[in-house]
Amino acid sequence: MRTHHLAVIGGDGIGPDVTAAALAGVRAAADRYGFAIETTEFDLGAEAYLRSGVALDEASIEALRRHDAVLLGAVGDPRVTPGVLERGLIVGLRVAFAQSVNIRPVRLYPGVESPVAGVSPDNCDLVIIRENTEGLYTGGGSISHPGTPNAVAIQNSITTVPATTETVEFAFRLASARRKRLTLCHKKNILVHAGQLWQDVVDEVATRYPDVEHDYVHADAMCLHLPLDPGRFDVVVTDNLFGDILSDLGATVQGGLGLAASANHNPRGTAPSMYEPVHGSAPDIAGKGWANPAAAALSAALCLAGLGERDGALALEAAAASVLAELPALAGPGMGGDTAEIGRRIADRVTDVDPAKIGDPERSLM
Amino acid sequence: MRTHHLAVIGGDGIGPDVTAAALAGVRAAADRYGFAIETTEFDLGAEAYLRSGVALDEASIEALRRHDAVLLGAVGDPRVTPGVLERGLIVGLRVAFAQSVNIRPVRLYPGVESPVAGVSPDNCDLVIIRENTEGLYTGGGSISHPGTPNAVAIQNSITTVPATTETVEFAFRLASARRKRLTLCHKKNILVHAGQLWQDVVDEVATRYPDVEHDYVHADAMCLHLPLDPGRFDVVVTDNLFGDILSDLGATVQGGLGLAASANHNPRGTAPSMYEPVHGSAPDIAGKGWANPAAAALSAALCLAGLGERDGALALEAAAASVLAELPALAGPGMGGDTAEIGRRIADRVTDVDPAKIGDPERSLM
Ligand SMILES: CC(C)[C@H](C(=O)O)[C@@H](O)C(=O)O
Ligand SMILES: CC(C)[C@H](C(=O)O)[C@@H](O)C(=O)O
Repeated sequence: MRTHHLAVIGGDGIGPDVTAAALAGVRAAADRYGFAIETTEFDLGAEAYLRSGVALDEASIEALRRHDAVLLGAVGDPRVTPGVLERGLIVGLRVAFAQSVNIRPVRLYPGVESPVAGVSPDNCDLVIIRENTEGLYTGGGSISHPGTPNAVAIQNSITTVPATTETVEFAFRLASARRKRLTLCHKKNILVHAGQLWQDVVDEVATRYPDVEHDYVHADAMCLHLPLDPGRFDVVVTDNLFGDILSDLGATVQGGLGLAASANHNPRGTAPSMYEPVHGSAPDIAGKGWANPAAAALSAALCLAGLGERDGALALEAAAASVLAELPALAGPGMGGDTAEIGRRIADRVTDVDPAKIGDPERSLM
Repeated sequence: MRTHHLAVIGGDGIGPDVTAAALAGVRAAADRYGFAIETTEFDLGAEAYLRSGVALDEASIEALRRHDAVLLGAVGDPRVTPGVLERGLIVGLRVAFAQSVNIRPVRLYPGVESPVAGVSPDNCDLVIIRENTEGLYTGGGSISHPGTPNAVAIQNSITTVPATTETVEFAFRLASARRKRLTLCHKKNILVHAGQLWQDVVDEVATRYPDVEHDYVHADAMCLHLPLDPGRFDVVVTDNLFGDILSDLGATVQGGLGLAASANHNPRGTAPSMYEPVHGSAPDIAGKGWANPAAAALSAALCLAGLGERDGALALEAAAASVLAELPALAGPGMGGDTAEIGRRIADRVTDVDPAKIGDPERSLM
């Protein structure tokens, strides 16, 4: 039997609970489609950091590397300076494992309501492809004389051809398997250097995908077009920071962070890819069972797709989507079930859901 | 009689038409409140650039400088490389005239519908204060070996204490005159150096405004909170690029770009401030009379406020808001009147509108 070895980083707050619930769905998909899942839990996150003083040690990186994929819950804890775990662990793994492509589907599932007028399952099915390792996330910069009137803060954004090309190539291939439209989103009227590199790469890769039309939208204008006319977009390719911001906007349009899934994808297969819900660790509701595991389950579906388990991926996505449509609220005490129970509901549904009911299964995500 | 000397840059596309319509409203306010307006038209924009090869010449800067304020329509033309006029003229003037504070009200006027569920005039009245001259807009950077696989693009973001302090100081003063809440928006978990400088400045200025509460929200999270819970915000202070993006999101929430006004404000009074609608030149509908002049009229109201004509500003804002509530669509052939006619309607309304009807006149914008 095909066996996939998953590294599991539950992390902090609601992370372990939503990950456990998502794994129930993954196991149900394995049973239905005849593959096996082996999991190894990694104790990374706030507790480990407070104990050891490092967010991500070399030994963990090497152990994680021996797996086929990483499932991450969420990190972040009030006892740790904000940003330390996010940079150290999440951004650290993205870079260590060359996960240059971040995949963020923005899809309104039937039965889920968008807060934006006019958005419906018929016109809201796009994927944001975000470069995941560069731009302002390189972290270069300095602050001189902090706290004085002479302080100057410098942040450097670095954009290279290899990571940009991998991202753009992935985006074109995806668009070619979908509705054949690609939109580059940047702010090239101001960030002229990075914008030129992105546009050059898009123009170059486009020659290899003559079936895909492409256009360009500024990042600011995207805040009008994405909510007001999502049907205009199929695949949106963008840089790290714009993708960070716009995928949260996408989450709003698709019904909330409770639905937003992501894949941190290594397109060369040189290290495992990592799958995580877009939401954070929500320490205020940790342990209450109020967290909706749908975004974690949808991220796990992306994981199955990345592992080549296409049928299992579609079934898990369909199961999560059909459970979502029944939840009265996206999280909180009114959710109508606790996190583990909703995970079991998703798992039960995986067994008999028709994957075709959530849309054209030919239209691939990965 | 008090006389204000306005420099008028109609610019390109729909810019001249919406500016002329807005000026009709300004003149009506002058008549009602007993001040005079003198205008000087400046021929800047695409035509001038195509003729001279420069977007903004020294002689124009010096002539503009002798005015009390600048009204700008819009710039951008298909015959000019995108970005050249925007950077040369708009960003050029912001920097030349030390307009370090960009003021962008996000207000849902009664009778206008927001596309976002739950947003109402009762919970949507905030102001985004954007630093207007620094960050990634400093434009520093390079692209080495463009068009080759070795290309590397660098963009530098520079943040200094003086411009940041001017912006934050302005934001606190405004919050203190409003609902006494200020939110810093940044991405300090990733942009650690710039984020630290912003947070240090906010913490320092906050000591002088003990009546104002302040908190912090990441730029990505803002894409959830701003549309879904605008009532949580009073004054949002942020950097140049985040402000650019989030004020377009604000425009979506408040009903569209047809309503989004802005002031490029020089807080030290060392050079004129500049007022412009957030929308662009829309060359496709130029000359058709389909452009809604409301955003230009609301920007002109900010101009009157900046000139100390508080009553005139409130009357013009109220007049534009009341006309807006009657327009069936925000622009296009279904607008129910052409740009000039709507300008006249706003001007007529200025004469007898009750400024208090658009809200508490004590709650200042400037
Ligand atoms: C937690 C943070 C570092 C991260 C990011 O900025 O990329 C998050 O916002 C995301 O979008 O995955
Ligand atoms: C035209 C462009 C340079 C400008 C900006 O990026 O600031 C515009 O988008 C704005 O928001 O005023």
